[in-house]
Amino acid sequence: MLIRDIASLAVVPPGPLAGEKMRDVNIIQDAAVLIEDGRLVWFGLAKDAPADKGGPALSAEGGCVIPGLIDPHTHIPFAGHRAAEFARRIAGESYLSIMESGGGIRVTTQAVREASEEELVELNLPRLRRMLALGVTTCECKSGYGLAPKHELKQLHAIRELNRRQPIELVPTYLGAHALPAEFEGRADEFIDRIGSEALLQQIASEGLARFCDVFCDRGAFTVEQARRVLTRAAKVGLKPKLHADELAQIGATRLAGEVHAVSADHLETIDEGGIAALKEAGTIAVVLPGTSFFLGIEHCDVHRLINAGLPVALSTDCNPGSSMIESLPLIMNIACCQLRMPPVEVLSAVTANAAAAIDLHGRLGAIEKGYDADLVILDAPTLDEWFYTPGRNRVKAVIKHGEVVYKA
Amino acid sequence: MLIRDIASLAVVPPGPLAGEKMRDVNIIQDAAVLIEDGRLVWFGLAKDAPADKGGPALSAEGGCVIPGLIDPHTHIPFAGHRAAEFARRIAGESYLSIMESGGGIRVTTQAVREASEEELVELNLPRLRRMLALGVTTCECKSGYGLAPKHELKQLHAIRELNRRQPIELVPTYLGAHALPAEFEGRADEFIDRIGSEALLQQIASEGLARFCDVFCDRGAFTVEQARRVLTRAAKVGLKPKLHADELAQIGATRLAGEVHAVSADHLETIDEGGIAALKEAGTIAVVLPGTSFFLGIEHCDVHRLINAGLPVALSTDCNPGSSMIESLPLIMNIACCQLRMPPVEVLSAVTANAAAAIDLHGRLGAIEKGYDADLVILDAPTLDEWFYTPGRNRVKAVIKHGEVVYKA
Repeated sequence: MLIRDIASLAVVPPGPLAGEKMRDVNIIQDAAVLIEDGRLVWFGLAKDAPADKGGPALSAEGGCVIPGLIDPHTHIPFAGHRAAEFARRIAGESYLSIMESGGGIRVTTQAVREASEEELVELNLPRLRRMLALGVTTCECKSGYGLAPKHELKQLHAIRELNRRQPIELVPTYLGAHALPAEFEGRADEFIDRIGSEALLQQIASEGLARFCDVFCDRGAFTVEQARRVLTRAAKVGLKPKLHADELAQIGATRLAGEVHAVSADHLETIDEGGIAALKEAGTIAVVLPGTSFFLGIEHCDVHRLINAGLPVALSTDCNPGSSMIESLPLIMNIACCQLRMPPVEVLSAVTANAAAAIDLHGRLGAIEKGYDADLVILDAPTLDEWFYTPGRNRVKAVIKHGEVVYKA
Repeated sequence: MLIRDIASLAVVPPGPLAGEKMRDVNIIQDAAVLIEDGRLVWFGLAKDAPADKGGPALSAEGGCVIPGLIDPHTHIPFAGHRAAEFARRIAGESYLSIMESGGGIRVTTQAVREASEEELVELNLPRLRRMLALGVTTCECKSGYGLAPKHELKQLHAIRELNRRQPIELVPTYLGAHALPAEFEGRADEFIDRIGSEALLQQIASEGLARFCDVFCDRGAFTVEQARRVLTRAAKVGLKPKLHADELAQIGATRLAGEVHAVSADHLETIDEGGIAALKEAGTIAVVLPGTSFFLGIEHCDVHRLINAGLPVALSTDCNPGSSMIESLPLIMNIACCQLRMPPVEVLSAVTANAAAAIDLHGRLGAIEKGYDADLVILDAPTLDEWFYTPGRNRVKAVIKHGEVVYKA
């Protein structure tokens, strides 16, 4: 299939793109793209386009074409919602006070435990369909609300089933060590040994239920020592490490990320120079989540500090019912552009090439590159700048996953 | 027409709602609303609903029902866009530097001058249709890019025509004194006497082309003395005063707003205690525009200071191609809730009762009140909190203007 009438093609190179390389997006005007067998086989100036052997051409109708968006950090699938808690937080109540009155993550854990696998699938399918209409073609999904082996496995099975039932490619992460469930109060090490047992990790890996293992390593969550224990065991069975790091307090989580060669370290609001050096040395992707700071009305992560230090930065929704009930990656991109003052090309690299690297799929996703998967978004704006210039307006005209048109506005 | 199956009805009282009264929204659960001849004739508990003589009922399908949203400050209609300038600003370039290289408002003035009335209509119709789908039933529209009598009149005629061609009720404002056009450089007083001449104002008023007269009174725009001259003449012919005030610098614009009993004073980022006192004394509505600060990545207006001082606060998009290319009032509401930390009910009052007061239509719009126009939005969320809790997701299921269903998702 030949895509023609492309006013501008944003040629994002394969990730990871470190520091100022995030701006190295080559814009080709009056372009065309040739797709064969689900892959990009040619792209360039329309006038140079080879003959298409694959049937009728698709017109981009003068739109801009970009790589499919990749959301590399979500807590989908979940059940229930915490809208009342959100309103209480806006009114000034602390998360601790909400937790103490029975709110917080435990509400979601209860809802997820009560839901069947099929219910989790039904609840989250519409969410993924809305994300597809916003240009998302690949999405990382975490367990982490079951907080007991059978419920964690149920979440991972739900991700597998969701992956089958809709076009977005879902990349599963096991986050058993997300929070301490009520029944383990005061026995965190015991919980860690249960949720991070070799047998459970082995089962998850051998059934292909997850590609990554993530731990929430922070004040009020799990210690560096506990996180190290889980991630080391996980690595042994082939689950690559990720970390929720340096969000609430600086306890050395990004140093651990470097030590275990984490694929990504996510959040980073309180990262320090030592943490930055550790990530850089290990080639870890820095995943910044401005939706969370937007949603909670708190200070944003200083993303320029990370980029100026030469780190590859990815952006994500952190979609979850507690701290970022935002499923729109384009909204996150607008926040990053307007509030964090990241130029459009830098934001685009962060949700394509670097987002792919944050889920270790930069060898086939997140770039406009020959041989890469043909995951593309056609916009109803002729340029990248015009897209970013209109926050709050969905400008996705069509979404192509692995060479197939899977969404049309 | 009876609207039934309303999970929650947000009964906003007629505006203006000053200070903490903005929270006085009464939520009725399991409600119904009866509409006759385009007006609300009854609302209350569904079980108490009177018989409907007006034909088939409309089901809200378990959604929340709110008054139609009112956007009380937009620069629609305009032509062209300034996406490249936006990208330059994000990259750190100053507005002054952009102006000096031929960018800024003069780009829009040129585009508007070059457009015919019909072109202005065609360019802005799709924008209004998208706003309708977001729940907007009434919208203030300003001239102010023509900056010459015939082009200002063309903009006002375009507003009149746009009002005829789509369901959103448009309320026109004459903003001839928006900026100094290039050909009057160094001759601001002369420009003011031309654009604010008694003959022109009389023509605008007698043809019903505007209800308000607005002036951009700020550093780099027009002085208090110049603004006073225009607004005083405008008031004589029945055009009520509005002011762009205290945005860039404190030059006494809100004091002038109080002095001339402006219907609204808009922006207010640099308002001081004297300005607050002046607005309060005059009963002027404070219109806050967080889309502008979001879009430009600058400090938000301290809205709590205004509310705590007992002012009635309205919110608006400020939709314009330079400083807020945001047409989504729900996005502004999410920014106000999450970033400015205004509770959902307060935000709702700001875009209904107080927005109606900011355009002097609080006698028939912006409230759930017997006899008021039946302008309503049906949401696919059962509560107000759930709506605000999901930024970036359009949850408008249906829009009713003057008793007619004018949009269905």
